[in-house]
Amino acid sequence: MAQPAPYKWFFETTTAFEGHFHALTRTLFSLRTTFQQMEILETASYGKCLVLDGRIQSSVTDDFIYHETLVHPAMLLHSRPEAALVIGGGEGATLREILRYPTIHRAVMVDIDQAVVEACIAHLPEMHRGAFQDPRVELRHEDARGYLERTRERFDVAIVDLTEPLEEGPACLLFTREFYRLLADRLTDAGTLALQAGMTKIGELPFYTAMARTLGDVFPVVAPYQSFIPCFGTPWGFIVAAKADDPRALTDAAVDQRVRERVTGDLGFYDGQAHRHMFSLPRFLRQAIAANDRVITDAEPMIVR
Amino acid sequence: MAQPAPYKWFFETTTAFEGHFHALTRTLFSLRTTFQQMEILETASYGKCLVLDGRIQSSVTDDFIYHETLVHPAMLLHSRPEAALVIGGGEGATLREILRYPTIHRAVMVDIDQAVVEACIAHLPEMHRGAFQDPRVELRHEDARGYLERTRERFDVAIVDLTEPLEEGPACLLFTREFYRLLADRLTDAGTLALQAGMTKIGELPFYTAMARTLGDVFPVVAPYQSFIPCFGTPWGFIVAAKADDPRALTDAAVDQRVRERVTGDLGFYDGQAHRHMFSLPRFLRQAIAANDRVITDAEPMIVR
Amino acid sequence: MAQPAPYKWFFETTTAFEGHFHALTRTLFSLRTTFQQMEILETASYGKCLVLDGRIQSSVTDDFIYHETLVHPAMLLHSRPEAALVIGGGEGATLREILRYPTIHRAVMVDIDQAVVEACIAHLPEMHRGAFQDPRVELRHEDARGYLERTRERFDVAIVDLTEPLEEGPACLLFTREFYRLLADRLTDAGTLALQAGMTKIGELPFYTAMARTLGDVFPVVAPYQSFIPCFGTPWGFIVAAKADDPRALTDAAVDQRVRERVTGDLGFYDGQAHRHMFSLPRFLRQAIAANDRVITDAEPMIVR
Amino acid sequence: MAQPAPYKWFFETTTAFEGHFHALTRTLFSLRTTFQQMEILETASYGKCLVLDGRIQSSVTDDFIYHETLVHPAMLLHSRPEAALVIGGGEGATLREILRYPTIHRAVMVDIDQAVVEACIAHLPEMHRGAFQDPRVELRHEDARGYLERTRERFDVAIVDLTEPLEEGPACLLFTREFYRLLADRLTDAGTLALQAGMTKIGELPFYTAMARTLGDVFPVVAPYQSFIPCFGTPWGFIVAAKADDPRALTDAAVDQRVRERVTGDLGFYDGQAHRHMFSLPRFLRQAIAANDRVITDAEPMIVR
Repeated sequence: MAQPAPYKWFFETTTAFEGHFHALTRTLFSLRTTFQQMEILETASYGKCLVLDGRIQSSVTDDFIYHETLVHPAMLLHSRPEAALVIGGGEGATLREILRYPTIHRAVMVDIDQAVVEACIAHLPEMHRGAFQDPRVELRHEDARGYLERTRERFDVAIVDLTEPLEEGPACLLFTREFYRLLADRLTDAGTLALQAGMTKIGELPFYTAMARTLGDVFPVVAPYQSFIPCFGTPWGFIVAAKADDPRALTDAAVDQRVRERVTGDLGFYDGQAHRHMFSLPRFLRQAIAANDRVITDAEPMIVR
Repeated sequence: MAQPAPYKWFFETTTAFEGHFHALTRTLFSLRTTFQQMEILETASYGKCLVLDGRIQSSVTDDFIYHETLVHPAMLLHSRPEAALVIGGGEGATLREILRYPTIHRAVMVDIDQAVVEACIAHLPEMHRGAFQDPRVELRHEDARGYLERTRERFDVAIVDLTEPLEEGPACLLFTREFYRLLADRLTDAGTLALQAGMTKIGELPFYTAMARTLGDVFPVVAPYQSFIPCFGTPWGFIVAAKADDPRALTDAAVDQRVRERVTGDLGFYDGQAHRHMFSLPRFLRQAIAANDRVITDAEPMIVR
Repeated sequence: MAQPAPYKWFFETTTAFEGHFHALTRTLFSLRTTFQQMEILETASYGKCLVLDGRIQSSVTDDFIYHETLVHPAMLLHSRPEAALVIGGGEGATLREILRYPTIHRAVMVDIDQAVVEACIAHLPEMHRGAFQDPRVELRHEDARGYLERTRERFDVAIVDLTEPLEEGPACLLFTREFYRLLADRLTDAGTLALQAGMTKIGELPFYTAMARTLGDVFPVVAPYQSFIPCFGTPWGFIVAAKADDPRALTDAAVDQRVRERVTGDLGFYDGQAHRHMFSLPRFLRQAIAANDRVITDAEPMIVR
Repeated sequence: MAQPAPYKWFFETTTAFEGHFHALTRTLFSLRTTFQQMEILETASYGKCLVLDGRIQSSVTDDFIYHETLVHPAMLLHSRPEAALVIGGGEGATLREILRYPTIHRAVMVDIDQAVVEACIAHLPEMHRGAFQDPRVELRHEDARGYLERTRERFDVAIVDLTEPLEEGPACLLFTREFYRLLADRLTDAGTLALQAGMTKIGELPFYTAMARTLGDVFPVVAPYQSFIPCFGTPWGFIVAAKADDPRALTDAAVDQRVRERVTGDLGFYDGQAHRHMFSLPRFLRQAIAANDRVITDAEPMIVR
């Protein structure tokens, strides 16, 4: 008895002219929340995946690449992070990586979509690994900008893990100079920040380069970097912004030493060599960043595609 | 009058469970040669693409990434390359990059499929840019292994740009320890070699890691590296093997200096920073390379999937 | 908040070069049985569908077309069917249509795959509508050919609702002249038979025409007919074979009268006009049936594709 | 050397949730005309196909089904058609079928898109088979409604072979009661008319049923019928409207006799039995036609999807 070839497929377009597909094995969870369509799908290649509005956010097979890339450069850049803020980050994996640092005594996560977080808690334990139960964590479901406006707390590290704005709406206001000025104000003096900032595939660089330029109006240090995320089928752009130190100044050995001294548990992707890999950008990408002069503002927000 | 959404698509599976697709605008050329099905397709995202047996080999938009990655590390590692050998490399872009070096006075390209080369000459001038007319070039259409067995020439640099073996047949014998021993014998004392060695996506590493291991039986220096190739939708693995020097020992500044002193024209992808990027491998990839003990031999060749 | 476009798709090839696709909303049930891969999928266009080895068998939206087409011509052709046999027919919808006839006092269904039948009972009540609870029904899970060899029962009507053989194996032996001779022997003197016999799309007629020819060696009356089945994306072929009467001799009015007098409940597809529609075949199809001389036998069984 | 599996595909959605795909072998012609995107593609299953705005109009393999269905019922219904009008019909195959009748001494074809007609003349000789060279033909490129308003000619038969309106615009005004009143006025006393009127797949009937209802306001006889068109992957709806006779009153024998007496050459699809097949509609389709009360007017035109 032959096994039938795959016949259920997940399709994701990366642009109007290009995309990737994955054999689907199961739909584990599906919900239309107040804010978005969410699903937890199981694919043959990557296992369980979180999908929001039809776009893969993360998979259990390669979430270590995405989340180690997103979290550790900013965390290790700070000499002693004690309070951390996560904006977005529904799966809890961003939080999980932050909680690896024993110096952290407080981690606030603000994700507007409670239904997504609860579904991830129930269905993606491989991702959060209990992070939400950690007593250091405060989980809030509200608009991040409103939260930042009201809070009197200050954070050593902030990680922004939001989907890029695909249509006009309040989400646009989490990607503007005004938002990052507000966020900078809520960081401590040597505060660091990292965010995911869209794909870095050739020809698809306007959002990434505009984010880098926009942060340059707010922070003295802006260090763009990237990692290939297998389940996205494209390299993905990230940016560290900081008030003091530059992650590119860290040697491989310094990164390895900090990982050894400060991080609990084993990392699968990140270390000194991976740090070098991520922050060393090919010429065309550096040129595109240098050439961009678009600043994203509340008055002129940016929609991806 | 609305523009219709794309309705002609090129589909390529990277594994049985995953793949990518590109909107097709035109089929420029199509031929069943003695060895393979070839086509020159035009895609909306990448322009003209060479496709062999349904697999994209290169596109005019990102061929500079692939071919600069493939050629320059091995070329710059050698102190003064005068004679170069290309095995495969039908589009002529590998040859084009080699011919940027004024020290080169002889470049032999051995590609068994004359029909592919002739179609590329006619339809892909953006790729070869006249390389085949260069008086330093000798173009041969024969089995590369047979050629190496018979030739008395010695080369300073060899670039192997062959498609991985997808089925049993003579192509398998261009990926074995015996083949690389023969090739090593035809290199000069400080000879260097680079080859494309299959994808480096997580979960799809057996071929790449086996090639690295196999070369380790032949060459004292084996340096695996990778670049993301946009039209492939995945990072791609390459290996430098050398008789003397190690490319990983080159500083960024040294690479930049060599590029400046030795290479004619501008590069779009490669320089010191890109060199660092390519040779700095993430942990999981280094671990997979270290863990592999499969050696590919004539007796036990390897089929990709 | 925009609704994302569909991104989960069911793909089914009808040939190596053609197929159709449906937006998937849910996977309701999935099981690898002893005999096949089964799934109950929900599609946006057709609602719940039974899928075996990647091929849609029926959907809740158009199962009335398929099952009314399959069952009523043979049932109404017989003057007073009392005992009926179903071979295959896992969803129970074939049985359901048979049980609409008050004259039926016994209906034996032989479907080798108990797991499929049980899953349909649990998950597709819209299809069986309680048919399996009807006291006139005997449900057996065994090889139909073995059953026919052993049984001493005789049936007035038999409905064969099996998937065509896609690979070598015992299923092939349910589509041969020997099988139909055995089945004919188990029918009463004016016994009638109907079967699904594969697609009738132009260019894909070898199986259908060979089945018609094979039955012609066994039955005096062989009447091919077809209906378009929406969720299959192609017209589908059926055949009535009978020992006495020819369904094509029935006038529209006679069919309408028999439906009125003999069938309980309303039909959605079938009546005199639909009967005429189904048994009136276009020229090219009649010509293909006439031209075929392939007889399917145990010694030379037929594999579809 | 294995043949690679197909990797170039034509995709066509029939609805937002469903579609079909065909392996593409070649793109023979591609042009953005003033009115639409046209292509002549070659598919593995159906050979050359005319594609307008991404939708298959006809293929050389099954165009006989579509065009015999469209033309002959209206032509044979008229006792002696001498002057015929084709509206649309770019490939020339509609014209070709009309010219089979020796009684025809004049055939005017009005297709607004000269570029499409010229490309079909050059690249689809299998379809027009020289029809445009026939001295009885007058070919005009202008808006059909404007032509009808100005012409003083009267026609015995009119065939409307237009794509359904997919967006607002002047094409909408060729599907309204006002348009058909104008057309009726240009027909002779026993004039007949046939048109293609969109798909008849279950769940996708609003356009077809509204067209039937709209014509009912204009013509005393309105006879809906359908044929499965293989390259469309769905049955397709047509309508005969007439001032006097009803095609459903013709017996199979009468149709066969008229074909024999009046039509030159062999038909592949149409004859008495096919006529019966096409005009005998399943219950659900008749019910949908009866239930529709939407009339399409200039003031309230209808967009398909």
